[in-house]
Amino acid sequence: MPPPIEFLHFVLTGGSSGSEAQVLLALAVMWLLAKVGTEICHRVGLPRVVGELGAGLVLACLAKALPTLVPQPANVPGMEYFAEIGIVVLMFAVGLESTVPEMVRVGLPSFRVAVLGVILPMVLGLLGSHALLPAGSPWIQGLFIGACLCATSIGVSAQVLGERGASRTREGRVIMGAAVLDDVMGLLVLVLVSGLVLVAGNGGGLPWATLARTLGLAVGFLAGAFTVGRFLTPHLFHLADRFRSEQVLLPVGLGFAFMLAWLGSKAGLATIVGAYAAGLILERAHIKHLEERELHSLDELLHPLVVSLSPLFFVLMGSRIDPAALVSPTALLLATVLAVLGTVGKYAAGYGAGKGMRVAVVGWGMVPRGEVGLIFVAAGSHLRMGGMPLLPPEVQAGIVGAILLTTVVGPLGLSWVLKPR
Amino acid sequence: MPPPIEFLHFVLTGGSSGSEAQVLLALAVMWLLAKVGTEICHRVGLPRVVGELGAGLVLACLAKALPTLVPQPANVPGMEYFAEIGIVVLMFAVGLESTVPEMVRVGLPSFRVAVLGVILPMVLGLLGSHALLPAGSPWIQGLFIGACLCATSIGVSAQVLGERGASRTREGRVIMGAAVLDDVMGLLVLVLVSGLVLVAGNGGGLPWATLARTLGLAVGFLAGAFTVGRFLTPHLFHLADRFRSEQVLLPVGLGFAFMLAWLGSKAGLATIVGAYAAGLILERAHIKHLEERELHSLDELLHPLVVSLSPLFFVLMGSRIDPAALVSPTALLLATVLAVLGTVGKYAAGYGAGKGMRVAVVGWGMVPRGEVGLIFVAAGSHLRMGGMPLLPPEVQAGIVGAILLTTVVGPLGLSWVLKPR
Repeated sequence: MPPPIEFLHFVLTGGSSGSEAQVLLALAVMWLLAKVGTEICHRVGLPRVVGELGAGLVLACLAKALPTLVPQPANVPGMEYFAEIGIVVLMFAVGLESTVPEMVRVGLPSFRVAVLGVILPMVLGLLGSHALLPAGSPWIQGLFIGACLCATSIGVSAQVLGERGASRTREGRVIMGAAVLDDVMGLLVLVLVSGLVLVAGNGGGLPWATLARTLGLAVGFLAGAFTVGRFLTPHLFHLADRFRSEQVLLPVGLGFAFMLAWLGSKAGLATIVGAYAAGLILERAHIKHLEERELHSLDELLHPLVVSLSPLFFVLMGSRIDPAALVSPTALLLATVLAVLGTVGKYAAGYGAGKGMRVAVVGWGMVPRGEVGLIFVAAGSHLRMGGMPLLPPEVQAGIVGAILLTTVVGPLGLSWVLKPR
Repeated sequence: MPPPIEFLHFVLTGGSSGSEAQVLLALAVMWLLAKVGTEICHRVGLPRVVGELGAGLVLACLAKALPTLVPQPANVPGMEYFAEIGIVVLMFAVGLESTVPEMVRVGLPSFRVAVLGVILPMVLGLLGSHALLPAGSPWIQGLFIGACLCATSIGVSAQVLGERGASRTREGRVIMGAAVLDDVMGLLVLVLVSGLVLVAGNGGGLPWATLARTLGLAVGFLAGAFTVGRFLTPHLFHLADRFRSEQVLLPVGLGFAFMLAWLGSKAGLATIVGAYAAGLILERAHIKHLEERELHSLDELLHPLVVSLSPLFFVLMGSRIDPAALVSPTALLLATVLAVLGTVGKYAAGYGAGKGMRVAVVGWGMVPRGEVGLIFVAAGSHLRMGGMPLLPPEVQAGIVGAILLTTVVGPLGLSWVLKPR
């Protein structure tokens, strides 16, 4: 039997460890702080996402100073899943604003922007790390650093494009298309570069079979979604239309998007790519009747979910910035230089969009990096070459710093070039 | 260095354990299955919540049969938090449909129903377990079993009342008021009965100080919310009204509700009681201007969150039913008898509503038990008397079974007496 006092405490706290209530408190604090952050940004003309990232950074600092009072979002149980759902719902809603034919029409410019946006940051990252890192550092290290800078974070630009009413412009579509494609390319680059590391360490050949499998899965998922998926989707929603109970559209729509997000992740892609594909495939015509019956469009039903859940993703992202890790001069210098090179490389990729498009919009839209780059750093942190870690802690901090700087600089630039004049 | 194959697998799965994607899949399956369940219930005239509970039970059976293919909702990381958020948002939305003065007007009938609804099930539970349990079982055991049957699950009836358009009737308000009050009383009973167990085991006096503190905290929270809280709320939303950025109402509203839910849980109450109180306190007049500016009422903004998140709570609840535990004859008999006694006791409590009210509506509305009763069982499972567990496994399974039966029978009865004729 537990001691009486402890048991009565257990009874008084409702029998649980109270973690559910702590999660509610953390969510409330995150919402209110994010709102204050976006309000400040709104007043000085900055995009909303900067306010949300800033709220996360402030929360992280407060949690470090007053650990008993303020929750660190990354430590709140379940928070990573709320954030994941938030960004998946956001990408589904963004995908709904375009259709597959509209994306095919910008396929070539998207492809050019994506290719340039992978090659240029890699080359610049390689040169930059060659200049900054101690002499004798293996060139593969520079290559890996460059690889971490090649995947655009689709969510950040999507939010700014939506806020500025530019999601349905051609530039907006090129950005989204290129961001999906560079997710596929980034995956290949990661497999290739980590294959090179293993070859340099262990000998043997390059992992061609793995490369082919990676490419095959990713391209296969996208091709399957845009052909078989597009064929099956009307049938699924036609079936849902035969339901007689109320409130069918939102659960079925979410179920559809989450299924594709899961399938995409099985093919090695980020879940948000699958959710975005779900939005592209689903067309107004398939759900017109359901929308009329429920008196709300799917957009309208998703809106409150996006408003309440997607800020959690950006606040959590901001709270992951470790102010202490950025204080080291090496890391700080590396972060700044890599951020500048990464910004220049992606901006220049905007020229791939070709004639008749605003290069500055496409270029700035490609600048933000995010979760994919951070995953690359995490993957690289496990690699060793000649008995030494491929990415020493300060280098890791530098790359993470650079990624986060582009996440703040990107929306600033994009929002500036989209500003109504 | 990890072996190459493992590393490449790690790379291919996006660097994560894939648990985010698994959560997305589980949510999609839960939504789609819940939709099928509610559709079946809709066609045969049963309330929606029965379909959602049934979907959970089916999912639990499938997960048991095909553990590699089908996720058991209770094991999905973060699911308990999604469910918690779902029920908290539902209770906030339900609270918004009434105001504090409206609840005060039904205060006396609610109080009578709550008192009867605690005393009658306790007495009946005590008698029933005396008849069924082996001779010589301590009477405190029966008292504890009765205590597990005294807290109404507010969420289930709230959903049925909403579905039948009866939330704003006087009966609906009495049910909600009595459910809040019996949550407070249930807490006191639990402290009292577990105090008796400790006294019987250890000697010493009853925990009067703890009882007083429990009552003081719970009543203090409710009184504070309805006085200080009601005074401060207009000021909070007036402040939010001065924000110039968009999409203020929903995050601030949710932040407000979640804060009160957390505060309520600090006072020992279930989080849903705090969320319901938040809804009662917040009045249309406080947010009229914000609603006009954002072209949506708070109800409309909450609706998609309720539709998508609250089914997760009921599916999860249904999935917690362990079919195997109910197969034992002792447990099955105990469950059936306790469910009948618990239903009769709560139904009879409906007579406390007094003249001019439909007793059957109030009575059936009080029948469903839920998370609070389950928490009591969990608390009791730790107690021992004379070296023996107070609640042997079969008795625990019987009480849990009875609680779940009332969760299914309650909405059936309520929905039946509310059916448009």
